[in-house]
Amino acid sequence: MGGSSFGTLFRVSTFGESHGPALGCVVDGCPAGIPLSVEDIRRDLQRRRPGRGAGSTERNEDDEPEILSGVYEGKTLGTPIAILMRNKDQRSEDYGALNDLYRPGHADWTWEAKYGLRDPRGGGRSSGRETAGRVAAGAVARTFLARRGIVVQAWTASIGGIYAPLRGDEDFDPAEAERNSLRVPGKRAAELIEARLAELKKAGDSAGGLVSCRISGLSPGLGEPVFDKLPAILGRAVLSIGACKGIQFGAGFAAAGSTGSAHNDTPVRKTENPGASAGGTGPPPPGNETGLPPEGERALPPGPPDISFKTNNAGGTLGGISTGMDVEFQAAFKPVASISQPQRTLDRSGAERELSVLGRHDVCIVPRVVPVVEAMAALVLADLVLRHRTARA
Amino acid sequence: MGGSSFGTLFRVSTFGESHGPALGCVVDGCPAGIPLSVEDIRRDLQRRRPGRGAGSTERNEDDEPEILSGVYEGKTLGTPIAILMRNKDQRSEDYGALNDLYRPGHADWTWEAKYGLRDPRGGGRSSGRETAGRVAAGAVARTFLARRGIVVQAWTASIGGIYAPLRGDEDFDPAEAERNSLRVPGKRAAELIEARLAELKKAGDSAGGLVSCRISGLSPGLGEPVFDKLPAILGRAVLSIGACKGIQFGAGFAAAGSTGSAHNDTPVRKTENPGASAGGTGPPPPGNETGLPPEGERALPPGPPDISFKTNNAGGTLGGISTGMDVEFQAAFKPVASISQPQRTLDRSGAERELSVLGRHDVCIVPRVVPVVEAMAALVLADLVLRHRTARA
Amino acid sequence: MGGSSFGTLFRVSTFGESHGPALGCVVDGCPAGIPLSVEDIRRDLQRRRPGRGAGSTERNEDDEPEILSGVYEGKTLGTPIAILMRNKDQRSEDYGALNDLYRPGHADWTWEAKYGLRDPRGGGRSSGRETAGRVAAGAVARTFLARRGIVVQAWTASIGGIYAPLRGDEDFDPAEAERNSLRVPGKRAAELIEARLAELKKAGDSAGGLVSCRISGLSPGLGEPVFDKLPAILGRAVLSIGACKGIQFGAGFAAAGSTGSAHNDTPVRKTENPGASAGGTGPPPPGNETGLPPEGERALPPGPPDISFKTNNAGGTLGGISTGMDVEFQAAFKPVASISQPQRTLDRSGAERELSVLGRHDVCIVPRVVPVVEAMAALVLADLVLRHRTARA
Amino acid sequence: MGGSSFGTLFRVSTFGESHGPALGCVVDGCPAGIPLSVEDIRRDLQRRRPGRGAGSTERNEDDEPEILSGVYEGKTLGTPIAILMRNKDQRSEDYGALNDLYRPGHADWTWEAKYGLRDPRGGGRSSGRETAGRVAAGAVARTFLARRGIVVQAWTASIGGIYAPLRGDEDFDPAEAERNSLRVPGKRAAELIEARLAELKKAGDSAGGLVSCRISGLSPGLGEPVFDKLPAILGRAVLSIGACKGIQFGAGFAAAGSTGSAHNDTPVRKTENPGASAGGTGPPPPGNETGLPPEGERALPPGPPDISFKTNNAGGTLGGISTGMDVEFQAAFKPVASISQPQRTLDRSGAERELSVLGRHDVCIVPRVVPVVEAMAALVLADLVLRHRTARA
Repeated sequence: MGGSSFGTLFRVSTFGESHGPALGCVVDGCPAGIPLSVEDIRRDLQRRRPGRGAGSTERNEDDEPEILSGVYEGKTLGTPIAILMRNKDQRSEDYGALNDLYRPGHADWTWEAKYGLRDPRGGGRSSGRETAGRVAAGAVARTFLARRGIVVQAWTASIGGIYAPLRGDEDFDPAEAERNSLRVPGKRAAELIEARLAELKKAGDSAGGLVSCRISGLSPGLGEPVFDKLPAILGRAVLSIGACKGIQFGAGFAAAGSTGSAHNDTPVRKTENPGASAGGTGPPPPGNETGLPPEGERALPPGPPDISFKTNNAGGTLGGISTGMDVEFQAAFKPVASISQPQRTLDRSGAERELSVLGRHDVCIVPRVVPVVEAMAALVLADLVLRHRTARA
Repeated sequence: MGGSSFGTLFRVSTFGESHGPALGCVVDGCPAGIPLSVEDIRRDLQRRRPGRGAGSTERNEDDEPEILSGVYEGKTLGTPIAILMRNKDQRSEDYGALNDLYRPGHADWTWEAKYGLRDPRGGGRSSGRETAGRVAAGAVARTFLARRGIVVQAWTASIGGIYAPLRGDEDFDPAEAERNSLRVPGKRAAELIEARLAELKKAGDSAGGLVSCRISGLSPGLGEPVFDKLPAILGRAVLSIGACKGIQFGAGFAAAGSTGSAHNDTPVRKTENPGASAGGTGPPPPGNETGLPPEGERALPPGPPDISFKTNNAGGTLGGISTGMDVEFQAAFKPVASISQPQRTLDRSGAERELSVLGRHDVCIVPRVVPVVEAMAALVLADLVLRHRTARA
Repeated sequence: MGGSSFGTLFRVSTFGESHGPALGCVVDGCPAGIPLSVEDIRRDLQRRRPGRGAGSTERNEDDEPEILSGVYEGKTLGTPIAILMRNKDQRSEDYGALNDLYRPGHADWTWEAKYGLRDPRGGGRSSGRETAGRVAAGAVARTFLARRGIVVQAWTASIGGIYAPLRGDEDFDPAEAERNSLRVPGKRAAELIEARLAELKKAGDSAGGLVSCRISGLSPGLGEPVFDKLPAILGRAVLSIGACKGIQFGAGFAAAGSTGSAHNDTPVRKTENPGASAGGTGPPPPGNETGLPPEGERALPPGPPDISFKTNNAGGTLGGISTGMDVEFQAAFKPVASISQPQRTLDRSGAERELSVLGRHDVCIVPRVVPVVEAMAALVLADLVLRHRTARA
Repeated sequence: MGGSSFGTLFRVSTFGESHGPALGCVVDGCPAGIPLSVEDIRRDLQRRRPGRGAGSTERNEDDEPEILSGVYEGKTLGTPIAILMRNKDQRSEDYGALNDLYRPGHADWTWEAKYGLRDPRGGGRSSGRETAGRVAAGAVARTFLARRGIVVQAWTASIGGIYAPLRGDEDFDPAEAERNSLRVPGKRAAELIEARLAELKKAGDSAGGLVSCRISGLSPGLGEPVFDKLPAILGRAVLSIGACKGIQFGAGFAAAGSTGSAHNDTPVRKTENPGASAGGTGPPPPGNETGLPPEGERALPPGPPDISFKTNNAGGTLGGISTGMDVEFQAAFKPVASISQPQRTLDRSGAERELSVLGRHDVCIVPRVVPVVEAMAALVLADLVLRHRTARA
């Protein structure tokens, strides 16, 4: 059974193999009337491209998107939005020798065990190239969310054991994360990581890392009990990214060692907590100058009082529903499986073989995963915003 | 939009408020012909009941299940299996005073923000009682899986910062986890945790903890690329349990600091690795004495060679598809939010209030979450086993 | 794979065998804040009960519903609404002799071919009793729709070849359909049909018939292109009722022989067509004294002009989307399969057998199908009303 | 909420506006290992093209398909199969004058009422062009079904009130339906209809018609009780085709006037009924020379006896599950809405206008709907074949 669709109301289906004719996505359920241009999509795809830093492959992935449907005169029609990206620079001969080998850490063998066959060119659909469709769809979601004042930003939190500044630290600089190709929110840390990656590259090895993400501008009420809690859906979204080995929300694993008195976030009147970047801080959506979300999405009178929380150990949700505080999470990614060091493995005949992966591969995938994490988070939120419209009579 | 259903082919819908007339579930899509009795369900529900240890509430939750449909002469019919559990011991007056307060760490306020109203009796559907429906459904899934030799076991890995022995440690004893009410796989650790919980109870405080889970007996090929990878679906399942703050698979967050040369698991011929509890080690399903899974679920000739892995940093999946090695994960749960220490909060009028929760509450929910984690894992696997049947022509 | 759930946002799952412990349903996704009592459900279930007329079985089907969850202090909570109906009068011995026979016109053999086993007591889940769960869920949907001014009414249009007055005929009297047990909208026709049924009963035979249904009070815009057009979803809903052999909308099959110039409905300004029972004629929902649907459900400024149509050959939809005119359809139901005349059939061993069905059976199911058709139509509309809330940014 | 996806396991999403850059589809869930070429898709698309007969538009619709993903070395990979068709001959100026008019019988006004805007070029996504994506996806489904011996054929049963020979009539010739551009299974009837269409064209009018369809080679057991009965899913599929006003199965509406004794089909041993084109008559799928469907799809021992039926009033299903007899249905399509006769209508300002549609339009859409009906039926069956694999433990 296919597993290439995601979402319930705002729903994306992606397609494409690494070295096939094209990759792309179809977004069904995007509301009508949203301004959308190919430039909105190109921008996010660019962020996913290999950088020029030490950690990145030099392959030229153009990822030039084309909008095939669903947009007319610059606005979404309410119909499916199909986006196409041709594969240009394929050089599948690089991979020919690997066709009979099961590369350690890759899905070669499990795909054969599942389907009885596989596309060996660049890993086929198990390649990271698959995420181009996610990012294109995420760009549509982002555009929808931006009009509600909802902003998603992710960054590199660590690579190879070297940590970037934490949110709250003095030297934490999210703007810097957009400037350097490693997506590290701190100049000094970026330099240290760059050096570490150069070292690993020389050693023919690779690194894993952490991605942090913050979603701000949410109104309270998003997320659906009981199985579709916000962290559950977000967790699935992020864990579906290749190489992701874990995710934690708010205090995360540290909460397991904590006590109720220390962990509980104290509710306070919102007026007492103006600094918290809770719901409503974003710019109003165009054409809705009150800045209020549409009726279906806001607490109707005589709703509960507007509240905030002194701390955010919860990571922005209670009972799986957004509190209006920022949703914050962190995800762990394993080291890139393709390394040039020789590794022992098996081939299709079951014979032992030695393998050195010599193609163009990233030493660390984390910087390129950052926009993918953002895309998945945006897709989740766009869906939950729409689902929330049906919560009340 | 409702979020009380889970799964695609093996699909459960749960219902019920903590202090309403009843809780229960409907399982749709369970294959026909599986022996199933109310005893199978009662057994798992018993494991979820409050124990007699220091960490547990003394409320008497009978959870006596009744099978309303879907079973005839002891076998599943292929039709929906509805299971009902009446709420007996409700004492909703315990909670009356809380109706206007937003309890810190609870979903009171977010539910009001979402729905405009809520059932204040015991937290309504945001209560942990909701998980009774999951466990009942999980028992059906377990029965199906057991016939394929697939076994799910979870245990308490830590509480309040005190760790149980790890799998692989000399004193790790999974049978002990079934004997003590804390579900700790080691006698000495259970005693230490018991003492810590007594201390916290006295202080009017609570603890969080970690649950570990192992799924063995899997054949390779389970999990659906790209959004429905095995860890993605399992992650959603476990993160949908109230209080869960994170999940990690295999090497998990540690993988983020590792290198490819250290992290990659080396493939070996299965005959060289007989000790690994990979696929096919369980007992054959009755009526299938070959011990092989049905045709649709196994690799067809001339399939890939049967392989295993020297290590299991991957946690049993590659590319989101099961390798046949055990699937291993760990989940973090925050401390119980209800504590008897006074806490500051707000009421519905927005006024500040002080709150001491005096009802019967667990000091730590982790031991009772263990069977819920097992249930969710069983539901995921039952679904993926069925989905895999359609992978090939 | 289970097929006992229906709907996307307003979603019902039903369960129960004819002679099992109970039948029921779980409605997930019903918005919060709707007044709902057990009386609302009982009323619709009563209409489904066998009447005292010649066409009906005398079995006493109590169908006393119990609301197990989802309602608190008389209002829906936004959580799953589970409704239970115990089977009381079962007498399964009536059916014992049939266990090995494949009754002509029944699903006995196909269920065995599918599942390898079946519940022979009263047809198990293939019995018409199954529809009790649909009617209970439909009652919830109706309550939701009534607040928007949307009303669903069905009636018997013909039985055994004898036609009731058509809508538009002088003697068409929908109130009469609520008075006689045959649900015929005309006193004289009811008498004729009653006589025809008495005749058939005496002959040990049975009759089929037609059900007509009208949905009024719809606003324009309901239905989702391209696969989820209003008639497509409604068609599936009605064709899923056992014994349904066909459905037609508006001019229906007659349209196939018509021409464009005759069939096209001419658009007119709504003010010119005040008699048409198009959208907005129902009473305003309580608490919304403007009589307007909530913002998300109405055409936003500077929307298209309010229009109506001179005729309604389209049956209330264009391009699968509601026009605001009444949605009108008709469904055909085959004769009851169980007849007391001897019939030739086969048994499980493949041997020829003669069968006379002597139990309590309806001579014609059509009057009892009327509320089931209404229930399915209500479920479809409730779902489409919610889905439409996400059409626009 | 989007409605452009169809199916549960074998699932298609279509996209594209009539005059946008492209149309297409993504098929997710097609099993791996099926031989598939662009020629398989082109063949079905050709059948949907305008013919040269009197009933058809002369617009040159190339519909040249390109497979973008999911196929490698001529076999399906188990991954999403994306198919693209560029729009070449657009001439959108033909439609410019209509932008502000609501064409009678078209969805112009309902789309505006729903979405607040629409693509006026050729009806945007409400155009019949949309069905190209369905036909491309249906071709994939057909290829899968053909390997199981399942064959879908539809034909024109009537146009403008002139009937083709019925199945069973001496002059019924399904091969003829493939030869003439009207898809009429009889030469004489085709000539009469051709003449009728010429007449209507001259008069500036249009015609409706009936499409009949037969699905043969089915094994018993397909279809899922209770909401996903085979006729329910098929009904939704066909009613989702634009202009469809009704559908009937087997005896259809005639059953409503019949009696049980006349309508019930008598079960007989299959060996007594060799002429019936029931399950298993097709060629065996390649690589499965036994001719048996894979284990998961056939009745397991000691299953029920192989039976057949003397007649097929049921239209091939009982209780919504296939009997192995041919599934037979008929669908009604309304006359083409665009006619050159002047019609009265309204424009966006609410003013009355007169309209004569002068573009290239079909006089009757029925011949071109034939392959669309086949495509939808094939998609339904492919899905139900896969769903049936999970019916048993």
